[in-house]
Amino acid sequence: MILILSPHATDEQIDHVIRHVEDLGFQTHVSRGAFRTIVGVIGDEDKLSVEPLNAMPGVEKVVPVLPPYKLASLEAHPTPSIVDVAGVKIGGGHLAMIAGPCAVEGRDRMERIAESIRDAGANILRGGAFKPRTSPYSFQGLGEDGLKILRETGDKFGLPIVTEVMDPRCVELVAEYADMIQIGARNMQNFVLLTEVGKTQKPVLLKRGMSATITDLLMSAEYIMSQGNFGVVLCERGVKGFDNIARNLYDVASVAIVKGLSHLPIIVDPSHATGRPDLIPPCALAGIAAGADGVHIEVHDCPEEAKSDGPQALLPHQYAELADQIRKLAALFNKTISPPAGVAS
Amino acid sequence: MILILSPHATDEQIDHVIRHVEDLGFQTHVSRGAFRTIVGVIGDEDKLSVEPLNAMPGVEKVVPVLPPYKLASLEAHPTPSIVDVAGVKIGGGHLAMIAGPCAVEGRDRMERIAESIRDAGANILRGGAFKPRTSPYSFQGLGEDGLKILRETGDKFGLPIVTEVMDPRCVELVAEYADMIQIGARNMQNFVLLTEVGKTQKPVLLKRGMSATITDLLMSAEYIMSQGNFGVVLCERGVKGFDNIARNLYDVASVAIVKGLSHLPIIVDPSHATGRPDLIPPCALAGIAAGADGVHIEVHDCPEEAKSDGPQALLPHQYAELADQIRKLAALFNKTISPPAGVAS
Amino acid sequence: MILILSPHATDEQIDHVIRHVEDLGFQTHVSRGAFRTIVGVIGDEDKLSVEPLNAMPGVEKVVPVLPPYKLASLEAHPTPSIVDVAGVKIGGGHLAMIAGPCAVEGRDRMERIAESIRDAGANILRGGAFKPRTSPYSFQGLGEDGLKILRETGDKFGLPIVTEVMDPRCVELVAEYADMIQIGARNMQNFVLLTEVGKTQKPVLLKRGMSATITDLLMSAEYIMSQGNFGVVLCERGVKGFDNIARNLYDVASVAIVKGLSHLPIIVDPSHATGRPDLIPPCALAGIAAGADGVHIEVHDCPEEAKSDGPQALLPHQYAELADQIRKLAALFNKTISPPAGVAS
Amino acid sequence: MILILSPHATDEQIDHVIRHVEDLGFQTHVSRGAFRTIVGVIGDEDKLSVEPLNAMPGVEKVVPVLPPYKLASLEAHPTPSIVDVAGVKIGGGHLAMIAGPCAVEGRDRMERIAESIRDAGANILRGGAFKPRTSPYSFQGLGEDGLKILRETGDKFGLPIVTEVMDPRCVELVAEYADMIQIGARNMQNFVLLTEVGKTQKPVLLKRGMSATITDLLMSAEYIMSQGNFGVVLCERGVKGFDNIARNLYDVASVAIVKGLSHLPIIVDPSHATGRPDLIPPCALAGIAAGADGVHIEVHDCPEEAKSDGPQALLPHQYAELADQIRKLAALFNKTISPPAGVAS
Repeated sequence: MILILSPHATDEQIDHVIRHVEDLGFQTHVSRGAFRTIVGVIGDEDKLSVEPLNAMPGVEKVVPVLPPYKLASLEAHPTPSIVDVAGVKIGGGHLAMIAGPCAVEGRDRMERIAESIRDAGANILRGGAFKPRTSPYSFQGLGEDGLKILRETGDKFGLPIVTEVMDPRCVELVAEYADMIQIGARNMQNFVLLTEVGKTQKPVLLKRGMSATITDLLMSAEYIMSQGNFGVVLCERGVKGFDNIARNLYDVASVAIVKGLSHLPIIVDPSHATGRPDLIPPCALAGIAAGADGVHIEVHDCPEEAKSDGPQALLPHQYAELADQIRKLAALFNKTISPPAGVAS
Repeated sequence: MILILSPHATDEQIDHVIRHVEDLGFQTHVSRGAFRTIVGVIGDEDKLSVEPLNAMPGVEKVVPVLPPYKLASLEAHPTPSIVDVAGVKIGGGHLAMIAGPCAVEGRDRMERIAESIRDAGANILRGGAFKPRTSPYSFQGLGEDGLKILRETGDKFGLPIVTEVMDPRCVELVAEYADMIQIGARNMQNFVLLTEVGKTQKPVLLKRGMSATITDLLMSAEYIMSQGNFGVVLCERGVKGFDNIARNLYDVASVAIVKGLSHLPIIVDPSHATGRPDLIPPCALAGIAAGADGVHIEVHDCPEEAKSDGPQALLPHQYAELADQIRKLAALFNKTISPPAGVAS
Repeated sequence: MILILSPHATDEQIDHVIRHVEDLGFQTHVSRGAFRTIVGVIGDEDKLSVEPLNAMPGVEKVVPVLPPYKLASLEAHPTPSIVDVAGVKIGGGHLAMIAGPCAVEGRDRMERIAESIRDAGANILRGGAFKPRTSPYSFQGLGEDGLKILRETGDKFGLPIVTEVMDPRCVELVAEYADMIQIGARNMQNFVLLTEVGKTQKPVLLKRGMSATITDLLMSAEYIMSQGNFGVVLCERGVKGFDNIARNLYDVASVAIVKGLSHLPIIVDPSHATGRPDLIPPCALAGIAAGADGVHIEVHDCPEEAKSDGPQALLPHQYAELADQIRKLAALFNKTISPPAGVAS
Repeated sequence: MILILSPHATDEQIDHVIRHVEDLGFQTHVSRGAFRTIVGVIGDEDKLSVEPLNAMPGVEKVVPVLPPYKLASLEAHPTPSIVDVAGVKIGGGHLAMIAGPCAVEGRDRMERIAESIRDAGANILRGGAFKPRTSPYSFQGLGEDGLKILRETGDKFGLPIVTEVMDPRCVELVAEYADMIQIGARNMQNFVLLTEVGKTQKPVLLKRGMSATITDLLMSAEYIMSQGNFGVVLCERGVKGFDNIARNLYDVASVAIVKGLSHLPIIVDPSHATGRPDLIPPCALAGIAAGADGVHIEVHDCPEEAKSDGPQALLPHQYAELADQIRKLAALFNKTISPPAGVAS
């Protein structure tokens, strides 16, 4: 950690800062320049990071040298982690092909969609039973009934299932049904929920918040991991941008940035990132080309009847075409798509 | 609601759209232009807004005419609402002067700070017992012990108290102690928490999320109000910007925008919006000049010892100076600062 | 064009609006709803777009139906345009492989770099002679000497050249030397410069401004095209984001968005978009996968000696590896990389 | 300047960096920590800033200690500068009251508006003769005819005039007519234009670019000042935001941030910042409360006939009311509004 002192810092203030840091058990290296004094601090930065050094008189800026996340960092685990979702591997060269409707709407529809995505080559089925809706007057999901339908559909078609949890009081319930638990973008910094999910041993799909930095995202993964649950898969799904021509701004570089900082797998969700079916295929392919460990795509057989986010879904045949292209790209980059246990490879 | 059809929409698609809308019980007005057909839809837009019309083949864009919030809108309540926090009025010409430390750290410190802000003219005391921290390794608050200290300090100095709740399981507990419940920026779209808080009858301080649009903010207020709790005070506290010279981008215009759309009071929080003590006074004054119904300021007697966010706090004497300027500005704009019940006016 | 009138619009205001629009020679379709009146306007929207209808009393919102650009639109030219840069084709299935140093620094270095990128498979050589630098104290480029070196190097290695122009007074000079003229991101809305470049018949590489919407970008292309120069190639090079972990936010979806609106080719520049050599290869591949018509990459043989933007350049051998991967991807997507006239295919 | 070396930097790389810096004539202070080595560099940072140290192998990050601007910095000139525009003072306690139409449209209208704003208390008249329009098909301004009308109107009503220049070839022409030259937001990083304007001795109104950081803004001022022209007045006019409810995001904190870094005056332009007449008065007052040295407001007597940006203008009587409130606020903050030479105080 480096302390840059203010040009107007008095000798007394400088001495106070140095003594304070040394009293905490750290070594200091002081460089007095023509304009400013710089204090290099040597020791365990973690312990120091909780000290409000930037509030000390005379301190202008604190420059951390180490990242604030530990368990999620590449230093802690220098090779890519592989997360296992009921037999389907994600990361380390294995691609997740997650697909399904935004919300679980009913058994028949769920089965039709599940069959179509399984046939197209998806290896995990998604569907929301608890829906975060911006309006209190919109469809909020089928709740436990939705979980049951999703579970039974997954079992029928041999696909592991992932579904979102919004309420810390429902984590146990969702964990009973699901193979993987999703934390939505709006809850990425719901620390209570992260902690609760961290106490389960279910893999977690952690979606990036709409204005979360990469450091924020990795700190949220750290919350889950600090509870003992290491099965975290990150997901880029677009950030807020100034151009409303698409729903969000798809940050494909985040995939490569994460790869340089963390061992955790990261997938992309072009459905939520763009909100436009015409942009989903090019953005999905871009994600794989950038090194993503999978794609999360919404698929619906009749978007105009969808109870939630119909317009951002692909039709089953569009998904099948895209999956085909993804397989070709995967082959080019030596990636594997592990078939679900219930599906013959 | 207006439907703009695609230039390539077929007659069959156009008819399908019109029939569908009319079957739902709405009237249509169709304008066929040289390039495009436009369908004006007349009827209760609320009922229509839950239909995925933009997923219908041939529909290019859906332009809503009415805002998606109802209870929060100026149409529902054309005069400014006044929220009463244990006798302190906010809105309709009454300014909230909320001040206190980021976190409750201990009884002595809390009392020292409470006394200083009361003497400076604050009318509500703040302090966090449950702290949303980006790092799982940072101080997370004193929990119920913090609530007790805050309550007793408020009582001792005659100040109503506001404190944050993060966990839906703690809403009842926090409501027992607090006069006003705060929803933090990171939880602005934690719909489970909003619903839970909406079931209490305590006034709510709802902070704007870091990438929430004004519509998002009002929709979150709507969540609380739809449960029967109408005592919502909004709070602008900065949004994400591209320049990291200050923590966030303080969106002072949001105050005036909200005033044109909603009857709910809106205050400003320049401490979180800027993260820099030197920017707090000018931004607080700017907020009042823009029409805000109060200011929320962090005050700490020794920022370098603060367990959370020390650098963004004012010292007690700095707060006193600022409060003095705010009073002058309030007088100029004919605003009142209602003294807390426990403090002689 | 649709006019949404205010809920408080008086009958007199509504009549005034309708009469005004009809006096201008347009037909109107009026829908009077319970809350609001909507006026659909039928006729040539271009003529209407220059009228300040949204300033009329009673008008709340003007919703245009057609895009403001014409020559750049897919309606004007429904198949992809192919731009020819001294024999190298860009667009319509042909990929541009533009590479070279940020600035022309001297003949020897230029030749070394040109040789290496030609051998790696680049088909256009870049290099700045006039450099837009944020500091007046930084290296500003070699000016005409730089142009000469670039031209002679291009000729020696059989590569067409592209270089930036910043000053309308230099357009003629640059056009004498260059095969393609670059408009930098900071000048994307320098309408004087766009007009001047539009008067030449040289192909133009138009970089997207750091906070330009897609519509802004296409409007700037329209400026050039409206002068008679149709050889415009767009370039995505990152927009401003809130996370300073990379220089800019690489908006790969813009490629697919442009493809749905315009016939103009669009390439990507991951060097400027990210400012980090480790992110250039994944982002370049992502761009091609998203449908880009080429990549623009900075290459330098000794970044630590570069006079400008050294840290964002690839080393020649890194570029060669990337070019190899791009060729494989191009083959997968049936794209062609046309060899420069001076280089045997 | 501080160099943070990579955790994987070899001893050889570290030695190479140190030797390189010392060869350039700087002193180094090396701190070898458990994880990383830090090199403090002592000497004239300006000379160092042009060296691409961050491209050296083993260097992870370069942390500058001094700002890159010099002449614009508070260190260079620790008291506020006062810029004199034909007798009207801006800065150091003197407020600019700049008002007028977006574009000069004709003599009669110009005179009507000038008279009204003079009577309301404005001290500088604005009006565009060269207009930067996003569409090549929009009204581009009256050119030199507009300059003449503006000059003669200013003279008739005793008001200094400010007008925009877009083309470096027109700087001399504009300087002949105008008392103050405006650089528009889209040209804030048009370095050719900045340099040309810096060669005149006319005061410059430099508008902040829509995605310019405060450092970018001050660097653009530095460009002008480095040519010998020190009369620069900065102007905040909104940055790009994610919420399209107003045109831009008005960054009122920028006023206070600039005051802490630079001696240059800074004013606010709520017309362009918001694009909505209802938001102009609250945002103007907020700017003054935040410490701005003036306000720039568009005024038009018939917005529905305006040839450019009608909807963002105030009507003359609205401006008069606002000016009245600004005067009261100015009195509260001990600011002076110097009357133009041609107007009796």
